[in-house]
Amino acid sequence: METAGKKSEEKMSVKPYKKAADYSYTLGAFPTIEMIKSGTARVRGVYVHSSFTDAEQLAALCRGRGIPLFVNDKLIARLSDKENVFIVGVFEKYMQRLDAAKSQLVLVNPGNMGNMGTILRTAVGFGIHDIAFISPAVDVFHPKVVRASMGALFRLRHEYFDSFAEYREKNPRQEVFTFMLNGERPLTVENCPKPELFSLVFGNEATGLDDSFLSAGTSVIIPQSEEVDSLNLTIAVGIGTFLFTRAAGR
Amino acid sequence: METAGKKSEEKMSVKPYKKAADYSYTLGAFPTIEMIKSGTARVRGVYVHSSFTDAEQLAALCRGRGIPLFVNDKLIARLSDKENVFIVGVFEKYMQRLDAAKSQLVLVNPGNMGNMGTILRTAVGFGIHDIAFISPAVDVFHPKVVRASMGALFRLRHEYFDSFAEYREKNPRQEVFTFMLNGERPLTVENCPKPELFSLVFGNEATGLDDSFLSAGTSVIIPQSEEVDSLNLTIAVGIGTFLFTRAAGR
Repeated sequence: METAGKKSEEKMSVKPYKKAADYSYTLGAFPTIEMIKSGTARVRGVYVHSSFTDAEQLAALCRGRGIPLFVNDKLIARLSDKENVFIVGVFEKYMQRLDAAKSQLVLVNPGNMGNMGTILRTAVGFGIHDIAFISPAVDVFHPKVVRASMGALFRLRHEYFDSFAEYREKNPRQEVFTFMLNGERPLTVENCPKPELFSLVFGNEATGLDDSFLSAGTSVIIPQSEEVDSLNLTIAVGIGTFLFTRAAGR
Repeated sequence: METAGKKSEEKMSVKPYKKAADYSYTLGAFPTIEMIKSGTARVRGVYVHSSFTDAEQLAALCRGRGIPLFVNDKLIARLSDKENVFIVGVFEKYMQRLDAAKSQLVLVNPGNMGNMGTILRTAVGFGIHDIAFISPAVDVFHPKVVRASMGALFRLRHEYFDSFAEYREKNPRQEVFTFMLNGERPLTVENCPKPELFSLVFGNEATGLDDSFLSAGTSVIIPQSEEVDSLNLTIAVGIGTFLFTRAAGR
């Protein structure tokens, strides 16, 4: 893999993203560099547009890790979907297990790729590195999610579960908090619980969590004016994770 | 205006949005109903798609306020830009002044329409009803902003200013807090200031606030991991407004 000849490049034949493929790709310099530095994914190759003038740092980074680097304008145009992209990093998809001894974020049936990426970035920003997805859920390896996460995907562990019950069976130690518009306990700056291990559970943008989650743990609500229908999901996750990770004593 | 004849409809000839036009429109039932109920904007007319089956409440609302209601599939298709829209409400743009005796949110050069809408919705959700925009800034009447705000635009006052200095001249009573990555004071759950009147100032998504804002008031930072570059702007605004509006004693 250290020599990046024409033959090995052709053999790879990177195609626009498909869920069934065993690889995906980062779009843009920042997430690509994040991915390489994290060491989380096996990187098959990095593609640079010929007009990208600042490739030296990237080249050195790739060289140091034995990652082949190619100039390929056509491939970048094909993958980048109209966006202004000069760097693409192709990586192998991977499976992970959550760390059962850490606080976690649980997303039940998340449906929006941009929101998902923003949520991953926010979680890592507040020190949460274990994210559970309850299926059906968006494909976390979709390039739109990877891009919106700004590479934060590679700084965390993620795992898909078929049901919340399956998630709980494998991660029983966390105290569960479900964020619901009909939650029992209004979360304020002063009264935020301070459990040692917690799971913060959020529903999807359109439907929230159904009433079965009222008894899954402590149901909470972020108090808000009745003038708006509800907070945006990403905002709710941002406030929830901030409160739980930055509460007194942490 | 009370009879919705063919002639008056033709006279209106609603066109896809232009900044220079003296009118704009809501897309979707929820923001349209929010707009009508708020009474903030003068509504020229409401357009309903012929396949919309639940128009009775809307028709009653319009009747009660003398707003003409039309069925016009072509116009909706022309304005809705591929999205699934069944209701369009055409309104006259308006100018407002902030209430100088209220706490305010200040957005310096905001550039993203979706973010702007989400921020307006979040501000109203936490009881902030006065929003300043420092130009250049996105057009708050653009249908994409109105839609992303879910109609929250009509529940608040907004005003454009050429500079932060001009804003301050007209709103001198608020204690100023600037949110900056190099802010001096880390904001935590316990230490959030509790001024009676405040202005929370945020830069735009790409560049943040420049260093001149370090001395515009108290510069603050939402503490975050070095693993991510920065919080998404909407998340930062969400956490900032939550902390200041929901701090102890409010």
